[in-house]
Amino acid sequence: MRLFFLSCLISLCSFINGQDVGLMPMPEKIVLTSSRFRINNEFNISIQGNAHERLYKEAKRFNQRLAEMTGIFMKTWNIDSSRFNANASLAIHSKNKGIVQLGMNESYALSISDNKVMIEAETDIGGIRALETLLQLINSDKDGFYFSGAEIIDQPRFAWRGLLISQPYHFMPMDVIKRTLDAMALVKLNVLHFYISDDQAYSIESKKFPALHTLASNGEYFTQEQIREIISYADQRGIRVVPELDLPGHSTAILTVFPQLASIKRDYVLQDHWGVFDPTMDPTREETYLFLDTLLSEVASLFPDQYFHIGGDENNGNDWAKNDSIQRFMKSNGLNSTVALQNYFNKRIQGILKKSDKHIIGWDEILMKELKNGQAKEFFEKEQYQELIQADVPKDIVIQSWRGMEALLSAAKNGYRSILSKGYYIDLMQPAWYHYSNDPIPNNNKIIIPDSEANFNRFESTIIDKIKKGVKLLTPAEEKSIIGGEATMWTEHVTPETIDSRIWPRTAAIAERLWSPASINNVEDMYRRMDIISSHLEWVGSTHLKNKQMMLRRLAGPNEVSSLEMVVDLVEPVKGYQRNKADNFTKYAPYTLLVDIAVADSKKLRDFRRLVEGYIKIGNSSKYQALESVFKEWQNNHQQIKQVTQNSPLLAPIIFHSTSLNLLAELGLKYLSKRSNGENMKDNLLNEFNTIKLSRSVENGHCELMVFESIEKLLQY
Amino acid sequence: MRLFFLSCLISLCSFINGQDVGLMPMPEKIVLTSSRFRINNEFNISIQGNAHERLYKEAKRFNQRLAEMTGIFMKTWNIDSSRFNANASLAIHSKNKGIVQLGMNESYALSISDNKVMIEAETDIGGIRALETLLQLINSDKDGFYFSGAEIIDQPRFAWRGLLISQPYHFMPMDVIKRTLDAMALVKLNVLHFYISDDQAYSIESKKFPALHTLASNGEYFTQEQIREIISYADQRGIRVVPELDLPGHSTAILTVFPQLASIKRDYVLQDHWGVFDPTMDPTREETYLFLDTLLSEVASLFPDQYFHIGGDENNGNDWAKNDSIQRFMKSNGLNSTVALQNYFNKRIQGILKKSDKHIIGWDEILMKELKNGQAKEFFEKEQYQELIQADVPKDIVIQSWRGMEALLSAAKNGYRSILSKGYYIDLMQPAWYHYSNDPIPNNNKIIIPDSEANFNRFESTIIDKIKKGVKLLTPAEEKSIIGGEATMWTEHVTPETIDSRIWPRTAAIAERLWSPASINNVEDMYRRMDIISSHLEWVGSTHLKNKQMMLRRLAGPNEVSSLEMVVDLVEPVKGYQRNKADNFTKYAPYTLLVDIAVADSKKLRDFRRLVEGYIKIGNSSKYQALESVFKEWQNNHQQIKQVTQNSPLLAPIIFHSTSLNLLAELGLKYLSKRSNGENMKDNLLNEFNTIKLSRSVENGHCELMVFESIEKLLQY
Repeated sequence: MRLFFLSCLISLCSFINGQDVGLMPMPEKIVLTSSRFRINNEFNISIQGNAHERLYKEAKRFNQRLAEMTGIFMKTWNIDSSRFNANASLAIHSKNKGIVQLGMNESYALSISDNKVMIEAETDIGGIRALETLLQLINSDKDGFYFSGAEIIDQPRFAWRGLLISQPYHFMPMDVIKRTLDAMALVKLNVLHFYISDDQAYSIESKKFPALHTLASNGEYFTQEQIREIISYADQRGIRVVPELDLPGHSTAILTVFPQLASIKRDYVLQDHWGVFDPTMDPTREETYLFLDTLLSEVASLFPDQYFHIGGDENNGNDWAKNDSIQRFMKSNGLNSTVALQNYFNKRIQGILKKSDKHIIGWDEILMKELKNGQAKEFFEKEQYQELIQADVPKDIVIQSWRGMEALLSAAKNGYRSILSKGYYIDLMQPAWYHYSNDPIPNNNKIIIPDSEANFNRFESTIIDKIKKGVKLLTPAEEKSIIGGEATMWTEHVTPETIDSRIWPRTAAIAERLWSPASINNVEDMYRRMDIISSHLEWVGSTHLKNKQMMLRRLAGPNEVSSLEMVVDLVEPVKGYQRNKADNFTKYAPYTLLVDIAVADSKKLRDFRRLVEGYIKIGNSSKYQALESVFKEWQNNHQQIKQVTQNSPLLAPIIFHSTSLNLLAELGLKYLSKRSNGENMKDNLLNEFNTIKLSRSVENGHCELMVFESIEKLLQY
Repeated sequence: MRLFFLSCLISLCSFINGQDVGLMPMPEKIVLTSSRFRINNEFNISIQGNAHERLYKEAKRFNQRLAEMTGIFMKTWNIDSSRFNANASLAIHSKNKGIVQLGMNESYALSISDNKVMIEAETDIGGIRALETLLQLINSDKDGFYFSGAEIIDQPRFAWRGLLISQPYHFMPMDVIKRTLDAMALVKLNVLHFYISDDQAYSIESKKFPALHTLASNGEYFTQEQIREIISYADQRGIRVVPELDLPGHSTAILTVFPQLASIKRDYVLQDHWGVFDPTMDPTREETYLFLDTLLSEVASLFPDQYFHIGGDENNGNDWAKNDSIQRFMKSNGLNSTVALQNYFNKRIQGILKKSDKHIIGWDEILMKELKNGQAKEFFEKEQYQELIQADVPKDIVIQSWRGMEALLSAAKNGYRSILSKGYYIDLMQPAWYHYSNDPIPNNNKIIIPDSEANFNRFESTIIDKIKKGVKLLTPAEEKSIIGGEATMWTEHVTPETIDSRIWPRTAAIAERLWSPASINNVEDMYRRMDIISSHLEWVGSTHLKNKQMMLRRLAGPNEVSSLEMVVDLVEPVKGYQRNKADNFTKYAPYTLLVDIAVADSKKLRDFRRLVEGYIKIGNSSKYQALESVFKEWQNNHQQIKQVTQNSPLLAPIIFHSTSLNLLAELGLKYLSKRSNGENMKDNLLNEFNTIKLSRSVENGHCELMVFESIEKLLQY
């Protein structure tokens, strides 16, 4: 009944872009009121309905987090499951026991008035989502802490909202996984994509083939008990865990133990470099399937989720081409391409996994046909979408689109469900706005220019052109087949020390894109709320903020870190796959350098850009002094940097960028002074700017000094 | 042969107090040379001799840490165990496989010359200790990183160098235990005392009695697989794990599951308060021993160490006194005191543990007789030491002395081995110098005034008097029976977020006391080195430095934390058991407050004290300006604090202390100005000081503002 009331109260258009609240993701519908529910030591929770045990546990954890955030010594802590107390401060009504699976009901209604907080949810999972929202509504004034008054009705836009973490490159131990799950729950992500096997390692215990984890893991793997612990921890938070065994390529680790299953005879040793390698399983031999039957069934029984990821990406086909027997097999079976043979392999794998009642998910290679550029484009233009994909790919699989819109569109047009990862590659060090503007359902408002992934962009530009012209490419039913997205944390250049600052807070923006209505798209407000949620994330254990100074202290030796930090905050790691070009970044390289400390989307940089834009917008006024003092700060800082770095060999890139900053600051001050004198020497200064830019690389130590663009804009004004 | 050469080179007195090096603990013998072994990407390790696998693993971890600290991309990483390479940069010779047990050989010799680093050790465990020393000798100049030249011969002074962590109050999960073990290895501690059971919880899985961990753990316990993981992780670092089941008191958790084994019928529920409680097992019933036989045998089989801690502390005897049947049992068996009955109990327990080949260790109550003050003192004066202890206590047990020197002395005089914990209670928030000055073998240089532990200090003052007069109380053989010490991290007021800042860096000072010769005792140099090692500790994962700002950000809300941090650095948590008096600090209280952020031995405070002392010592000169600017900083900071804390209810204690600081700064500046004018208004200023001290409590928010003493000294000068 209450829900009906709320539905009347809240019109569909009444959601706000986060005004005054630090919510992330924003709810589907929210009305803020002037109510304040005062939090004091009488605060208590009661639960009614047929709730799963996990709601009681999460409510208890809610109490703990509430106490930690407010410093209040609660009188009652435990939630009595034996009886419902209608007078409780927070009354939760959860109708049914949820099951953590694709399509679970995560909806809830949350009402905060002066005297009462109420949550209504179809399942305990919706209840858990509501508790996260409520914690984000804590506010304070001189009288103490309160929950901001609000009427919220909320549910996710997409059912599959994931984060991939790869284990084989740098192993991410239990504590990383647990704190990541806590952080995911905070921003309402609901799938941990657990990437287990690659050329560098096989990362979980196998009781059937113990050599896999003993010999092919570098000694770093999860025991089966630990896997169960992860799954239980995730389930408790309403998060699925989907395993991925990348097959048939990316399989060196398996082949070091079972070289007889390889397509080519050679010495197989664990890779310690990153990239795409030739080793591939032989899909023409029955032994391969006998082995995979046993292995996949074991892994499938360990992970209860209905979905199993079989990888399928980046099989370059080199080893298949070199093996005569495989070539003969292809000919005699009418398989005329690598992709066709892989499709044969995939169907065999699907048969195996069907026995364990699993649906398959795979990278987009498992769907797409190998077509020439012109040919693909032609089929697309003629709307012969079925020609873009392999024949016979079972309809119940899910496609993970990582190479671009072509696959997403092809999947949707041919009746396949898909999730988007292209544009959510957080390892590529793009800013949050980039990911935020990338919508799983492409429309003309937000088109992300694709990263360069060679050999695939066969008609993506055509798609983009159409969308920009306002052509609606997908029917509503086809749109519905796009069921979500996943951020991918590939860990080639990431260690347990740095992973959090690579995932957070940017992934919160992706989480919002996948949960909130498409109309929630104000980038500036997203950043405002992301900076608030960034703190919340660290309170559940993320180290993305606190490891910065720690790592700087290691670089700095006996020196103070504050002046170093100022430079770190104005640089960003190189983007895309540029760092991979430096082939000394192997598994055993140090990941403790400037490039590992710098983050992709520094708040200091955003503030500086906003300051310059503000100055340009409102002219030579209040922002003048602010800009002047920033430039002076850069200069003073450089004086300090020159002193502190005598015996610290690791600080060279910081000194380099500081030197550039110093020159740019001088230029900026010259500009401001001339401008305030009414002089116009724009061209001269721009010449000086270009000289600096040419003589001093923007990039050093795999980091780019990110202020050049703003300075140039300023000088042009 | 090399060892002989070194022995000749290094005279017994040649060790230095850490000049120019950041070593902690200091080696037994060290000669620094002017050599510099340059570290570059050719660095490699080779191992010869009959080394345990753990040395290879630790050497590989050494390589990783070396790369992380220096940023060098090593060419080779793995250590080839199949052959010895005499030309390796670092050649390790380890004669025998070590076994991680009491008395293991941890000695080593380490030689660093321009072209070669060599480690010689009797066992791989000594080799591992040497690797930790070597990492502390990394240094850098403008040409890069190097190992400082040195010739070192080293071995521990005491065999048992422990750290206790209690699980039942606040559960410390796997990641806390692992990073603590890494940090312990760094400062060469070798025993993790794993405290499992108390009134608040039973913290490990029991397969024999699953109700213990399912019903009496609050859901927080280690599985047996996790225990094995901890033991293996510790063994890898040459660290023993000694379990403690505290019996027969401190046993509420067990009695909630088995109330029939209790001395009194009542409802047993898990405690969520801290302190000493009545519930005690009934030692007169055979069921008790049947139960304990099964439980202790299970726990004993889980922990391979030869020692098993049976607790035995703080049995107040109340429940035994109330039970007639127990009273009758005592009478009929000639057991005329609580202690005598407990001794009977202990002997039964020992019988049980003997079947598992375990030696017993227990708190000093298991040895000492219950004597009246005068009586105890009399026996001591008459050197009738055997009258101080229980009869029939088996000689192979180890006594953990926590209540004072009486027990340590009584144990030694009666042929019992003992370890010292009194004075190493790091939960009591004493400064490092306090622990550092507390020697397990009491002598007249360093007598620590005991903390107040009522009802026990029956003749401790007599002992102290004697020692101060130079009386040598122990024979060399008796001294040898004191085999070490243990820092105790009781976790009543400690969470996973704060535990590191409670353990580190102060425990490094205790580690040095237990490893290094007694003659290494320069407090100032200890602090200099401790501050260096503090950084090393955070590089192996300790959060003691980085969690400060994180926790401050939570308190601060939207405010900047720097001005708050300045105040935090000048306060310390109340010492001793003062915080326990506030009975709202239960298991479920928030431990995220100012008192949880402040640390016991702030570097900023030490610096301020040194500055005042320097000013007083060398008079009105160079320190004048430094002092003046400190006082001005306090005042400016207070202006900022007044602005930032509008809507942050948790910041009240910080504002309080900042207000005091502001007043003291004003007084300090007045003093400096008068002094520079040659005025003398000492008495007036001291009056003002006393007024401030009276009107504004030194303590607020369970923290003390620690600058009063120095300011008073200054004003008196």
